[in-house]
Amino acid sequence: MQQNLRIDGVRLSSRLDQLAQIGAIAGGGTCRLALTDEDKDGRDLVVRWMRQLDLAVTIDAIGNVVGVRKGSEDGPPVMTGSHIDTVRTGGRYDGCLGVLAGLEVIETLNHAGIATRRPLAVAFFTDEEGSRFQPDMLGSLVFTGRLSLEEALATIAIDGARLGDELSRIGYAGNAPVARPNVHAYVELHIEQGPVLEAEGFAIGAVEGIQGISWTEFTITGQSNHAGTTPMSMRHDAGYVAAEVTAFVRQLAIEIGANQVATVGALTLSPNLINVVADQAVMTVDLRNTDEARLKEAERRLFAFVAEIAASEGVTVKHRPLARFEPVDFDPQMVARVEQIATDFGLPVKRLPSGAGHDAQMMAAICPACMIFVPSARGISHNVDEYTSPADLTAGANVLLRLLLELADQ
Amino acid sequence: MQQNLRIDGVRLSSRLDQLAQIGAIAGGGTCRLALTDEDKDGRDLVVRWMRQLDLAVTIDAIGNVVGVRKGSEDGPPVMTGSHIDTVRTGGRYDGCLGVLAGLEVIETLNHAGIATRRPLAVAFFTDEEGSRFQPDMLGSLVFTGRLSLEEALATIAIDGARLGDELSRIGYAGNAPVARPNVHAYVELHIEQGPVLEAEGFAIGAVEGIQGISWTEFTITGQSNHAGTTPMSMRHDAGYVAAEVTAFVRQLAIEIGANQVATVGALTLSPNLINVVADQAVMTVDLRNTDEARLKEAERRLFAFVAEIAASEGVTVKHRPLARFEPVDFDPQMVARVEQIATDFGLPVKRLPSGAGHDAQMMAAICPACMIFVPSARGISHNVDEYTSPADLTAGANVLLRLLLELADQ
Repeated sequence: MQQNLRIDGVRLSSRLDQLAQIGAIAGGGTCRLALTDEDKDGRDLVVRWMRQLDLAVTIDAIGNVVGVRKGSEDGPPVMTGSHIDTVRTGGRYDGCLGVLAGLEVIETLNHAGIATRRPLAVAFFTDEEGSRFQPDMLGSLVFTGRLSLEEALATIAIDGARLGDELSRIGYAGNAPVARPNVHAYVELHIEQGPVLEAEGFAIGAVEGIQGISWTEFTITGQSNHAGTTPMSMRHDAGYVAAEVTAFVRQLAIEIGANQVATVGALTLSPNLINVVADQAVMTVDLRNTDEARLKEAERRLFAFVAEIAASEGVTVKHRPLARFEPVDFDPQMVARVEQIATDFGLPVKRLPSGAGHDAQMMAAICPACMIFVPSARGISHNVDEYTSPADLTAGANVLLRLLLELADQ
Repeated sequence: MQQNLRIDGVRLSSRLDQLAQIGAIAGGGTCRLALTDEDKDGRDLVVRWMRQLDLAVTIDAIGNVVGVRKGSEDGPPVMTGSHIDTVRTGGRYDGCLGVLAGLEVIETLNHAGIATRRPLAVAFFTDEEGSRFQPDMLGSLVFTGRLSLEEALATIAIDGARLGDELSRIGYAGNAPVARPNVHAYVELHIEQGPVLEAEGFAIGAVEGIQGISWTEFTITGQSNHAGTTPMSMRHDAGYVAAEVTAFVRQLAIEIGANQVATVGALTLSPNLINVVADQAVMTVDLRNTDEARLKEAERRLFAFVAEIAASEGVTVKHRPLARFEPVDFDPQMVARVEQIATDFGLPVKRLPSGAGHDAQMMAAICPACMIFVPSARGISHNVDEYTSPADLTAGANVLLRLLLELADQ
């Protein structure tokens, strides 16, 4: 009978719609920055739903919320979830899908009267986006013991607020401990946030792992000069050096190939005037690869090029590491099961890495973990135009249902 | 006796110091944006000095101020001058030197009891910098009949004020007409604002002309995408295209050579985030050459490259011309006289073009005109660190004195 069990796609979409009303912004998007009033209202709604589904809700000291459905046996739960905070101009699927699909699985099981051997848990983690408090994935970092509670609570927001104060203010400084918890397995359903599944015609992504990330900020200091009166040979142009680095970074990604991506997304020139050679350029370089050795090669070649071009232009460069995560591999058996379940459903499925960071990569450090991706229209995310079709949402939630049932009854 | 006549360098430096007190900013610089209270106070001081030197002061309808010393004959005056408005973080020499050296010439002649055949005039023009009201060189544009008074008065400042209103408010909406005036010749002493004279050991620059200027703003529109999840081949990265254009512009200047300079001084990415491929880049390109044909070639090659790289990256580009001036040649005989007078004084002199725009280029349209440059330490200008040594100021003013006397007695 469990083979014929299906989630209710209309009910899932309805919950996504209701949650999206909180912090709704023009164009159909959502703004629920972590620990703001909107985040509180969103949390309150999801916690109410958890209680309506008879989940036992606990809130830990960093505000992570876990709703547990009892198993026929005690023991570590099979957990699913994600986050419900958003970026400033976020969509309605990023994070919320994983949490609300988890509730949809619970409701489906409740309605069918199905008990599982292991407990099932649905979680949402605090401040996954990192838009208001850095680092991102803060809640799952604390949950998995990789960031201390004290340090996390002392984090200062971009608006000057202290995380611990904001957590208390919205009533989500819970009393569950944040000791490294005992979890049997973790599955996270998420939108791809990239264009690959849609472009190549797949309904489901079996996520093999998370790309390693290397973020560096370069501050290039040259000399401000008049654009008309300074001969080319006498320039120390910070903007020109930034441009050569940006062009090199593209070439680097193409040469390394495979899963290597490289991006210069932020660049600020100073004084940023039409007729003045820039004396300063502050730029970021984002390098990602699923292979740690290749990621290190990309870093090495980047730094060598920066040194070379800086010397030839007579500018100085300082760099500041902003983030560095090694690639994470998900549990091979679980990835294989995602692939098989999708195939059983007749859904075209592709193995792929995640280019974005997710709570699942933190969970992978404490238990077998994997992710299920569904397509993002045109690859758009962190944007009010983020969209995944109801059919794709339903397909992803059904794969999640089947996998959770398997894991809970193993 | 006139061969032994010299200006008083101490008096000249003293006037420069006094004027620099008005709108003084930290670091020894000056902020007297056009038609602000500080500009009014600066104008009042210079007008007081003009009257103390028995100059007949007229103020025209756009606020240009001319002080005239009678000649033994009537007729068109030999004019010198510049401007006293500054950029927001300006130095104390840019413009002011030309005006106050003119007054110093008058005081030297008065003191020596020397009459000239033609009248001598010292002028300062409204809003040369264009920092508050665009275009720059606005006062001399109106003075020489290239911009209508009505259009100039209707100009709106970056702070929202109307130029005509500000002119009345500070009491400099004069009643002299702005008909294209009859001027025998115009000489402007100015700091180089570039590094060439100092670097090559020259005291005087005999300015052969003003570089033609081509300013273009490009708005590149691509697609905002996640830096981790978007394969390199699927990107439409506006920031990458801006970088390739910036690198090309450098190469273009080097290939065209001679006096060609090319600068990307301003570039703004959007959304300008570390992990988002930029969907928009707004950049400026500043091209200058003394040769109009080569300047046109530079423009043509720039536009061809922009079209090519935009097509290959799948982005769209719009362009907006911000300024276009053809090169201006100064009067060859006057340039030769600057060179000869400097040589007679034992001052090392170099012929060079001006990379910056000056009121003299407008005056060149109505009478024989030329400029005298003195060195700028390290080429720095539009900066509180702008500096020219007292010896160089004095040398420049003595060359001005000699040339004005020659022109006034011819």
